[in-house]
Amino acid sequence: MRSVERWGRFELELGGNSGGENPYLDSPFEAAFIHEESGTATLAAGFCDGEGVFRLRFMPERLGRYSYRTSSRHRSLDGVEGGFECVPAGKDNHGPVRVAKRFHFSYADGKPCFVMGSTAYAWTCRPREVRAQTLASLSAYGFNKVRMLFFPKRYIGSFGDVDISYEPPEYPFPGEPGAFDFTRFNPSYFRNFEERVQDLMDRGVEADVILFHPYDSDRHWGIDSGMNHADQIRYLRYLMGRLSAYRNVWWSLANEYDVTTDSGGRTVITPEAKDWDGLGEFVRANDPFGHPISIHNIPFGWIYPDRPWLSHVSYQHPDTYTLLLELKARYGKPVVDDEYQYEGNIRDNWGNSDAETTVERHWRSAMASGYASHGEVFASPENRRDIFWAYGGTLRGQSPERLAFMKSIFEDLPFQDMERDALNTDGQNYFSLHKGMDLYLSFFRRGLTGKDIWYGPRDGTEARYSATIWDVWNCREIGRLEVGLRHRFEVGDWTAIRLVRLE
Amino acid sequence: MRSVERWGRFELELGGNSGGENPYLDSPFEAAFIHEESGTATLAAGFCDGEGVFRLRFMPERLGRYSYRTSSRHRSLDGVEGGFECVPAGKDNHGPVRVAKRFHFSYADGKPCFVMGSTAYAWTCRPREVRAQTLASLSAYGFNKVRMLFFPKRYIGSFGDVDISYEPPEYPFPGEPGAFDFTRFNPSYFRNFEERVQDLMDRGVEADVILFHPYDSDRHWGIDSGMNHADQIRYLRYLMGRLSAYRNVWWSLANEYDVTTDSGGRTVITPEAKDWDGLGEFVRANDPFGHPISIHNIPFGWIYPDRPWLSHVSYQHPDTYTLLLELKARYGKPVVDDEYQYEGNIRDNWGNSDAETTVERHWRSAMASGYASHGEVFASPENRRDIFWAYGGTLRGQSPERLAFMKSIFEDLPFQDMERDALNTDGQNYFSLHKGMDLYLSFFRRGLTGKDIWYGPRDGTEARYSATIWDVWNCREIGRLEVGLRHRFEVGDWTAIRLVRLE
Repeated sequence: MRSVERWGRFELELGGNSGGENPYLDSPFEAAFIHEESGTATLAAGFCDGEGVFRLRFMPERLGRYSYRTSSRHRSLDGVEGGFECVPAGKDNHGPVRVAKRFHFSYADGKPCFVMGSTAYAWTCRPREVRAQTLASLSAYGFNKVRMLFFPKRYIGSFGDVDISYEPPEYPFPGEPGAFDFTRFNPSYFRNFEERVQDLMDRGVEADVILFHPYDSDRHWGIDSGMNHADQIRYLRYLMGRLSAYRNVWWSLANEYDVTTDSGGRTVITPEAKDWDGLGEFVRANDPFGHPISIHNIPFGWIYPDRPWLSHVSYQHPDTYTLLLELKARYGKPVVDDEYQYEGNIRDNWGNSDAETTVERHWRSAMASGYASHGEVFASPENRRDIFWAYGGTLRGQSPERLAFMKSIFEDLPFQDMERDALNTDGQNYFSLHKGMDLYLSFFRRGLTGKDIWYGPRDGTEARYSATIWDVWNCREIGRLEVGLRHRFEVGDWTAIRLVRLE
Repeated sequence: MRSVERWGRFELELGGNSGGENPYLDSPFEAAFIHEESGTATLAAGFCDGEGVFRLRFMPERLGRYSYRTSSRHRSLDGVEGGFECVPAGKDNHGPVRVAKRFHFSYADGKPCFVMGSTAYAWTCRPREVRAQTLASLSAYGFNKVRMLFFPKRYIGSFGDVDISYEPPEYPFPGEPGAFDFTRFNPSYFRNFEERVQDLMDRGVEADVILFHPYDSDRHWGIDSGMNHADQIRYLRYLMGRLSAYRNVWWSLANEYDVTTDSGGRTVITPEAKDWDGLGEFVRANDPFGHPISIHNIPFGWIYPDRPWLSHVSYQHPDTYTLLLELKARYGKPVVDDEYQYEGNIRDNWGNSDAETTVERHWRSAMASGYASHGEVFASPENRRDIFWAYGGTLRGQSPERLAFMKSIFEDLPFQDMERDALNTDGQNYFSLHKGMDLYLSFFRRGLTGKDIWYGPRDGTEARYSATIWDVWNCREIGRLEVGLRHRFEVGDWTAIRLVRLE
């Protein structure tokens, strides 16, 4: 019997035909997977992967034997039976990411996931050597989520006279730009995308797949703006049939869902807002594996109201602290500031933050017990597509190494069990988290001349701590010492202090 | 017929006796005041102002004729009748301050009150020339509220070997330190305090009268620590009988109500917390004129939970923005950060902020649509009582003139109608308020290199504004110009921008 790793991917390939029907119009077949020991049944949908080839993918979540049986109105795809043994996950396979402890994320095996994303919208369509650079950059700095668009991206504006547009080598639909046939798919485009998701999985990176977006200046391709609701649902069903069994997938319904015009005032998507609730409910109902689902908005619009289909809040705003805390309180879900204004050199606010601002914003998000995503927009006329935010490549800003250092600190904490220590936070120069009296973490963006921090209660309680002090800008530990609750630390700009209670 | 200014003070003096009873044990008499036109009746309590002298004070709130009649179980104080004509308030008399528009304060005549307080706990007991300096300093910088203790203050600690203690020339009770008779009062002490409240009233300053406090190191006087609940109620009744008719009075139940030990760990008030709810309800029920009531806590304790008797939240914390917004949301009442750590030079956090931190914190409170109080603690061995925070005198920090400039900007706005403009706020370098699209105010603590602020909606709406730009650190206007919604301002550290929509 075949064996499949837990949270790995079982794939059933069937030759067959759809009796002359368009095999992309609907799911050509489905299969019920029974976990024999528990009796749990899970339904998964198959898809047509090109002329005469049908596939179905399944991600087993329990150890032990699974059996399956297909059903289809096409005789050649109906009644196929089989089974496999789900065996323990390999060393680097922690399963899909789930919401944990209300405001956090953990892998299915229980390992906490300190989400630290970056952004590379259209990296999947770039040549192999650029993709290799992209993957190397993500790994080098520990980014473990990438926001990436499924559809091609054409963003004009913000780059002066420099044309950064890029025509992908192929399209998701048959036809040509401005005249695509949305009732059929181009499996090769999807296959490339899946391989990129697998590339990320191999490196432990979550693929935050953005399903719709408004970046199609002049309706060059006419994809997002051309699809009607039935087209949208058909596309989602097909994509989800192909991708849901990849454990590292997250669904982001849209990027900047409320953008309807580009910076020149031209309409870029159909003025009627999509039925995001209908699409969100569809995704939730048709994903057998419960991947995270969000929707992302523009900073000038409104953050999407809470919905049952939203697993977490994805927002975009330079305020990574006060607003993030408000959103946590309002939604009771994890909050990720997926765009706090990228490090970069362009004229527009969204891509001209310096490294200090970038690193401070990311630290602030963590000090609000939340999460954030990095991005980078260094544009130059000489190399007009060497912009990580859009096309991937090599990161060259000053923030990534500092974010990697930051992440190493948070991954070494029981971050999910820590809360804002409001008493030792001014929201201005310093911020603190604590876990009762067992553990404190303070971040000082600016030095506190003459100030000290008074951890713990003021009732005379005594406790001893092992203190570690870092310079988080220069990415180095600057001291370790044993202290009591009222030690006066020398605190400079970018100092972080961790206190771990001694027995 | 006598005439009394609206929100002025009518005073009835009666000679009489209490038939041998202690005249301080209870209200010796009361009077019902009838506003003849409306028929409104208000009851006010009298008090004994020393041997054979009884008084009753009343603040009329309506124009027109009032008549009154006393009642007492003491024949000489019973059945006294009279009346007066309430005439329009004088130019600088705007009436008592009330909560307005949920999160704000206005005078009774409708004039908004942008509360900007300072702190001079024990200034009332100091010699005349020092009091004159105190009043001149408050007026020079536009401080319009003073936090001040009724009982004498003895704070030891935080000043090294320098003894800053001060023995007041008299006490509120007969007896001597450690052995006061709480069943009687020393009218002279109260009279002095009232004259100081009147001094403030004459300058348009609200007297935030703190009724109890823990600053009596070593139980030197044993007042706060010595009174039982009946003593506390008797004291409140007497003080309120004397002070309620002063229109500029606010009641603060306590300063740092949850402090029970001094910085050396010595008990400074009775370990049993006072019955603050009982005291708060008593104050509310016995103040005929509805002055603001708050209670103030220490930064390491808890902010007092919401209660019907609380008119507003008085808290103490270096976070004047995020926490202030949270408290507004939690209480639905005005929030005043009455102690954000004073400008000063002592070792302790509470009194060693530099002017930049002080001014930034005060600006932040206003950008959260809230309020704050300043304080100053410059201590020197040469002049051990020249510490404004404790004893008044002359302000000499760098923040007051900047706060005065800040206040002038806010008083020129419809501040009560403005809300946080979250879209144009990062909570880090810049903050904005707006009133729809009619008016914007942005404060930039730090310059935004290359960034611009995008006011208004992003839907192509056009509007023209008159912009005023200030350097709020150097207290000067640096430009006026007409702009549209997407003007890129040159923004440096401490820039503030006001946009007023043009017709």
